[in-house]
Formats: sequence, structure tokens, C-alpha cells
Amino acid sequence: MIKQKITKRLENYSRWYLDVIAAADLADNSPVHGCMVIKPYGYAIWENIQKILDRMIKEKGVENAYFPLFIPKSFLEKETKHVKGFAKECAVVTHHRLQQNDKNKLVPASPLDEPLIVRPTSETIIYEMFAKWIKSYRDLPLLLNQWANIVRWEMRTRFFLRTTEFLWQEGHTAHATKDEADEFTLQMLGIYKNFAEDFLAIPVILGRKTESEKFAGADYTTTIEAMMQDGKALQAGTSHMLGQNFAKAFNVKFLGRDGKERIVWQTSWGLSTRIIGALIMTHSDDQGLVLPPKIAPIQVILIPIWGSAKDKELVIRRTDELKSTLLCNGFTVKSDERNVRPGPKFFDWERKGVPLRIEIGPKDVAQNSFISVRRDTGEKTIVSFDDATNHVTKVLGDIQGNLYERASKFRERSTRKVNSWEEFTRFIPEIGAKLKDDVDLHDEYEANAGGFLLAHWCGDSECEVEIKKRTRATIRCIPFNQTLEEGKCILCGGKSKQRVIFAKAY
Amino acid sequence: MIKQKITKRLENYSRWYLDVIAAADLADNSPVHGCMVIKPYGYAIWENIQKILDRMIKEKGVENAYFPLFIPKSFLEKETKHVKGFAKECAVVTHHRLQQNDKNKLVPASPLDEPLIVRPTSETIIYEMFAKWIKSYRDLPLLLNQWANIVRWEMRTRFFLRTTEFLWQEGHTAHATKDEADEFTLQMLGIYKNFAEDFLAIPVILGRKTESEKFAGADYTTTIEAMMQDGKALQAGTSHMLGQNFAKAFNVKFLGRDGKERIVWQTSWGLSTRIIGALIMTHSDDQGLVLPPKIAPIQVILIPIWGSAKDKELVIRRTDELKSTLLCNGFTVKSDERNVRPGPKFFDWERKGVPLRIEIGPKDVAQNSFISVRRDTGEKTIVSFDDATNHVTKVLGDIQGNLYERASKFRERSTRKVNSWEEFTRFIPEIGAKLKDDVDLHDEYEANAGGFLLAHWCGDSECEVEIKKRTRATIRCIPFNQTLEEGKCILCGGKSKQRVIFAKAY
Repeated sequence: MIKQKITKRLENYSRWYLDVIAAADLADNSPVHGCMVIKPYGYAIWENIQKILDRMIKEKGVENAYFPLFIPKSFLEKETKHVKGFAKECAVVTHHRLQQNDKNKLVPASPLDEPLIVRPTSETIIYEMFAKWIKSYRDLPLLLNQWANIVRWEMRTRFFLRTTEFLWQEGHTAHATKDEADEFTLQMLGIYKNFAEDFLAIPVILGRKTESEKFAGADYTTTIEAMMQDGKALQAGTSHMLGQNFAKAFNVKFLGRDGKERIVWQTSWGLSTRIIGALIMTHSDDQGLVLPPKIAPIQVILIPIWGSAKDKELVIRRTDELKSTLLCNGFTVKSDERNVRPGPKFFDWERKGVPLRIEIGPKDVAQNSFISVRRDTGEKTIVSFDDATNHVTKVLGDIQGNLYERASKFRERSTRKVNSWEEFTRFIPEIGAKLKDDVDLHDEYEANAGGFLLAHWCGDSECEVEIKKRTRATIRCIPFNQTLEEGKCILCGGKSKQRVIFAKAY
Repeated sequence: MIKQKITKRLENYSRWYLDVIAAADLADNSPVHGCMVIKPYGYAIWENIQKILDRMIKEKGVENAYFPLFIPKSFLEKETKHVKGFAKECAVVTHHRLQQNDKNKLVPASPLDEPLIVRPTSETIIYEMFAKWIKSYRDLPLLLNQWANIVRWEMRTRFFLRTTEFLWQEGHTAHATKDEADEFTLQMLGIYKNFAEDFLAIPVILGRKTESEKFAGADYTTTIEAMMQDGKALQAGTSHMLGQNFAKAFNVKFLGRDGKERIVWQTSWGLSTRIIGALIMTHSDDQGLVLPPKIAPIQVILIPIWGSAKDKELVIRRTDELKSTLLCNGFTVKSDERNVRPGPKFFDWERKGVPLRIEIGPKDVAQNSFISVRRDTGEKTIVSFDDATNHVTKVLGDIQGNLYERASKFRERSTRKVNSWEEFTRFIPEIGAKLKDDVDLHDEYEANAGGFLLAHWCGDSECEVEIKKRTRATIRCIPFNQTLEEGKCILCGGKSKQRVIFAKAY
């Protein structure tokens, strides 16, 4: 196990994030530019995410398929805005062989007629196929999803949050009418919301992205935005209404019931390994990773404690019994029977964020009980052996609920209505004002990146850009479900109909 | 549904293969060189393969992880034989941006300092990490697996069997001793054997590859070889003993219990979407796809049959009841309630290889029974409704068994001991002798590619090459578990200790 010290959040939040990942053994740097290695414990979290989300997506009638990794350059170019959005971060395959040159060095050979782009997203290659498959209204809606790797060349990378290669699912649909596509866009956003809140215990705000923040090629983008413990926002999933932009570029047409040719309406939506970054930063603490029970690769860690060899046999037998009981009841359980003292074992599993620790010593066996310790609160309970299943069921439920509550309360505390530029910059200072920023960082941990600021905005992207330039804050979304309220733009004073959410973001 | 006609196997086997894939809607060509699209029904088969094989692999103590898609050229070059094996089929990334040139065309920009290879296999990038992670004997064995996409530039491609991009799992392990690595190589081959035989109902022969057919960089390669219905061999999975070749190149060392530094011993092993090609070609017939129940995305298709609207209500209610019963008993069931006549429905699901069809008409409802039709034999049974679960359990078991039996018998019939070049070329003629080949093709379907020939071989790769040149037959493997027997090389007459398997191969 890794013995490295974890930096405190207040001391250095970025460092803390890296330390938590290292201490829980989730990922490692790779020698390839911007690419990470997802280690077994981190990948087990991704597998759980896949398992649950895949089921939720399939319940909507969506089927999985697989499309090529490579996209011909000409495809990417067919939708003008789309290619503009991705041209700067494309890994380009130009050759299909390595060959020795006269200096006996292997160099790229056999140049391709047309360069291939490693998919930065798959709208273009998928819709080329849609055009081939969709003939009539009977072929609609077409609802597909793929689990795949994606490459976007990033200059500055950060584990899970921003890597050149990442894993995701991307859904792609075609519908007969605009209304249906609008509705599906929101349905899938709803899936992401439920998944984030019910399974990852991450409270999210649903809303629409501004024109400048929307997906390149979409009519509009909807998003779920989460708040990290440093007050920064993290976009945790997006669902795009693509309108007919790609359908026109790729000629995706169908014959309607009335025999007339029409163009389909499309949506696409994705959620990536980035959400693991959100998961880490929402719940973890200065002792390391904290995982919600519903997503934890190990929900309960059993630690037998013994002094003598005789005790060992006794407690291990009892531990095995408990393990069987809990496994039979559907929990994921592991028992740590290494010949290591209890302290270091506690320490290891704490850092790995296992929601519940159960300690079983000779005394406990004698009293037909065990000690249960919650990872989220540290609360210790003595539990009768006969009550094991009930107790574990209840406590895991409590932990799941508590993590969500805690994160919600934190977000509430760090969400503020601001009505003037002065108020705005009190929480998110202008970039020059470094000192104030630093003071905040040490004085009030929760607000160090300013949290969410609910502010009026005139709707002009010039103001949006100027605010970003001055403060690095962006409009995270125009939230749904808020009371419309007239006001004045925080920057220019122009008319505004509703507040939007500003925040610094990952 | 697709109405395309399926070519008969005897008429044109290659065309038949493509027709079966099209009729079952498993895959489609993509506009990207050598890459296919795996359509939902084909991908559902892959998901079932993943689910089962993943569990089997994890039961061996192997954990999943994820490593980068890109491999720096210098890494590939570290193991001399390895790079030689893959240099000719590498997709090479040379730039990380697209930029407009003066003619307003988007061209690759920002060249990389070092080209990146899209992984043709991941030994090099993974063992670079192993070198970082492995410090002492306590870190061994290290047993990892990843599910990933792979790119090998192929000039001639064929659905599932040979595509530029394919999906697979690749396992990579490091051990303290040679014995342990030898044993693990065989254990994983055993997993592949069990998976192929018990789940896919594909009988396989286990053996070792010759020096010229082994994995580039391995000490030796073990393989499971299956026979397709045209008598050709298909390598369905391989497990490599890598010895210390990569470990030396990547400096993967550990401190032994005795405090001495040692080099690890390694294995790698993989099974890919290619196995879906084997699955199709082992069981399917002139009516289309045939799937073993244990891997079929739909095990039972229910077809309600009605004349009047009143009948419809009746039979659909009964169908739903049966569906619930079978679902509760763990079968994957679908009911086809489309407003389409029964004939076309039967036809559709037959082509999709659903193992069992259940027909329910008004008469059946009145008699409290249904009709059950096996896909493999066409056998019809009238079954009492109350006996549904037992019947389905039994028949699906029978189908699974029968498919394996049928394939085994076919392989037996098409496996022959040959003792002279004349005998050899009677079954696998020399390339010039086209006519004889053609005659076989039409006369005796089973032997059209000659099947497996058990022949003596001197062990010299010159003979191996010459035989391949003359007949296109290769040595598929030196089979395990055969009685050693002295003999003379089929080509040169030199001494031989055992027979090997020659065959034409996919």
C-alpha cells in the first residue's frame, strides 16, 4: 500500500487532489503526452459507473453499438462549426507504416491519401452511417450509444478531469420531429441527473449552456453542473440538441408517413471518466478518498484483529462467517487478513474510501458482536452479530444519504445571489487582485474559488467574454426551473430576464 | 428487417458469410479504411462475450485497468523482434492539430516531436508502467487485463475476422519465476478453451505455435484453433509466454526474498471480436445465423399469432404471461408483437439465430399449450403451458450441447492423418492445381478447404515456408496431449517426433 502523505485541502487543493488519487491508487501518469493510466481501483469505479449508467440508458430503449476510432478529415469538415470547435485538438494519423530509412531509423511511411482524425467525438462518422440506415419514418427514432475512448489534444492535463485520451459513452439519436428531439435531449439530461444524484451522491444543477459554451455544431447544449469543495464548478455531463445541423451536412433524410422526404432531428449526449474527478472532489476529505456506497468497488472492509495464533483462528473464522452473510445479501465485501497490524490496515482502507469498516477482535467474538466504523463521519457502533445485515443495510443507506446532504448543504452555502460587480468580485475577484484571493483561500475554505454566483446577465456574449477575461469565471448554465426575475447585467447594466450561474470551472 | 437473400454455403462460402452477417444485421462497412461498424445485434453478442469472459478472467485474480491508446515510437522499438512484427501495420499519429493553409484547406499542423503509434497491442506501454510499479517480490504476481480497441493496418479486410480496428481484451502479467509464468500461460489458454467450448460451443485444439507463427517478442505462443465449416482453421485466442524479453527491454526488475535483484517473467494473452467470426462460421447454416443459447442476445423469441382482434388480445395476454414466467427464470426473451404476418416473423428471427421460437395462436391458448421450434434442428414440439420453464431449460441445454456435438463431429470428419505429400495434396492441393480444388468445393462441402491435416514435420522453418508457398496451408499448432510418434517430414522426409496440424486458415 502507498504510504504517501496527503496534503490538506486548505493548504493546497490541487495537491490534495493528486495526493488523494495517489493514496487510493486510482491512476498514474503515463509516458504518453496527456494520457493517464487508470489503475485497477480507479477502473473498478468506472466499471460500476458503466454498469449502472448502461442499464439506465438501455431502459430508455437505446442500444449499444460500436463505430470506428478514425474519422476521415473530410467528414469532420462537413459541419462548419463542428470542425472549428475541434480542429485545434485533433490527433492526426498521416501514415500507416513504419519503415527503416537509410540511417537505419524507423520513420513513418506509406502516407495516407486523406489524414484520419482520432475521434474527438463521433457525430460525423455515426451520422454518415445514419444516412445509410434511415430510409423511412419506420426507422425512427434511431437510438444508439457507444462506450469508447476519445482523444482531444490537451496542453495542460489533470487526472480524470482533463486528459488527452479519456473514456466515455456517447449517445446519438435521430428523430422524426423537433419536439421529440427536444424532449429526448432533456430525458437524457434527466438520466445524468438521476445517475449523479442517486448513485454518485453529487447534487447537480440542470441548465442550458450559453451560445459561446455550447457544443460545436449543436442548436443548444444542456448540462448538469456540480460544485467541487473548492467552490469551482464541474460540468459532469451534457446533452445536446443538434437540431438539423448534422442531418443536413450528412444528408440524413427519411420518408414521412405522408410520403414526403424530411430531414431528421438529432441529439447527442455524453458522460466521461471526468465524472470520477467530480466524485473524488465532491466527497473526499483530508484523510483521503470517500466513496458513496452505491458506487464503491468495496462497500465493507472486514478487519480481523488478533494477538495470539489461537485468537487468529477464532477471529478469522468469525470474519469469514460475516463475509459470507454480507456477500449473500448482495454487498461487496473484502476481508483484510494480511499479517499487518490493525492500525495500518485501517489507514489503508480509509484512504481508499471504503464506506464501512468492520473490526472483529477476540473480545467481539466473545460478545457475539463487532465494531462498525463509518468512513464519512468516523462514527463507531458496537453491533450484535445477529443484526449484521440490517445494520450494514441501514448504515450504507445513511452514508449514501449523508454524502448527498453534505454536498448539497455545501453547495447551498457557496451559492450566492450577487447584484453588482462589487458584490461579484468580493467572491470571485478580478485576476489582478491576487492577494484577496489568497486570503479567501486560507480564511474560508468553502469559498476559495468563489462558489456559484447567481447574477443577472444581458445575454450578450461580449459581456460574457469580458467577465471571463477579468475573473476567469464563466457562465456555467442558464438554470432550468428558476423563477424569472428582471434585473440588470452584472457588467454592463443592460436588461436581463433571469439570473445565470457564474463560477470558475474545471 | 432485412430481406436480402442468403447465398448457400456450397455455392459461395465467402458470400454466404457476408450474407449471414447482413441478414442478422450484425455489422456494416464503414467509410474508414478497413474499419467496420458493429451494429446493435452484433454488439450485444460482444457484450455477452465480455460479461462471461471478464468474470472468468477475474476469477483468476486478474484485475482490469486501462492504459493509453498511443505508444511512443521509441517504446515499440525497445524490443527488436516486437517492432519488426508490427512496423508494417502501424497507424502513425504525426500531428496534433488541423490548421487552415493559404488555400483555405485544413491540413495537419503542430507536428509531434516523436510519432505516436496507435496501439497494435500494448506490451510496451504496459511494461513501462510495470517497471515503475514493481519493486519487490511482494508486488508479484502482477495480473492485469484491459478491454480495448486495437489498430493493425490491414490491406484486405473481412468482417470480424480481419479489420483495421478491432476490440479485444489483452491480459498482461509479471511473475517471479519462469515456472509460474509457464503455468499461467497455460492457465489462461485453458480459460479460452473453456470459454470457447462451454459458452460458444466451438470445439478447439490446444497447442503451441511454431517459431515463425509465434507472437513477435514471445518465447512461445500457445493457441486455441477452431475449424470453420469450410474446413479452414481459425485462431480463436492466444496466450504468450514472453519469457524475459520485454522485461529486459523495459527493465522490469524486483528484489527477491533473498534481497537479490531479479528480472520478472511475463505472459500476455488476448481474445478479440474475431471470435464472433468464428461463432458465425462454426454454427450458422443456409438459413442464416445460428447462436448457442449461452451467448445469444435473445434466447427465446415469442410469436403471438392472431386472426381477429379478439384473438389478438387473447394471445398477446398469454404471450405476456409466458414472457414474464421465462424472464423470472432468467432467460432472455423477446416477444414480437408487430402487426406483421407470422411467416415473415419466423423468417426474421431464424436469420438472427435465436435458438428457440415459441408460437402461440388461439388454438394453443385454448389447449393451454404452445408450439416450440428449435433453430438448430427445426424440431417442433407441442408443450403444455405449465411445463414452459422446464421445457425451455431442457431444450436450450440440448441446443447448446447439440451445436457443440455437431461442430465436434464435423471437425473429426475433416481431420485426417496424412503420411505423404501425395496424400497431403489430395486434401489441400498445390496452388497450381485449381481444378481439383474446385471439384472438392462442389463435391464434398465439408472438405472444401481441406480440413486439418495431421502430418509429420521435421521442425525446420524452411519446410514450413515451402509448404505454405505451395499450398497456402500453415502449421496451425503443435498440439498438446498427443501421443508422440516418430515419422518423416511430409515435405523433406527428415526425422519428426510428432505430428502437427496443417490447414488453410483465416
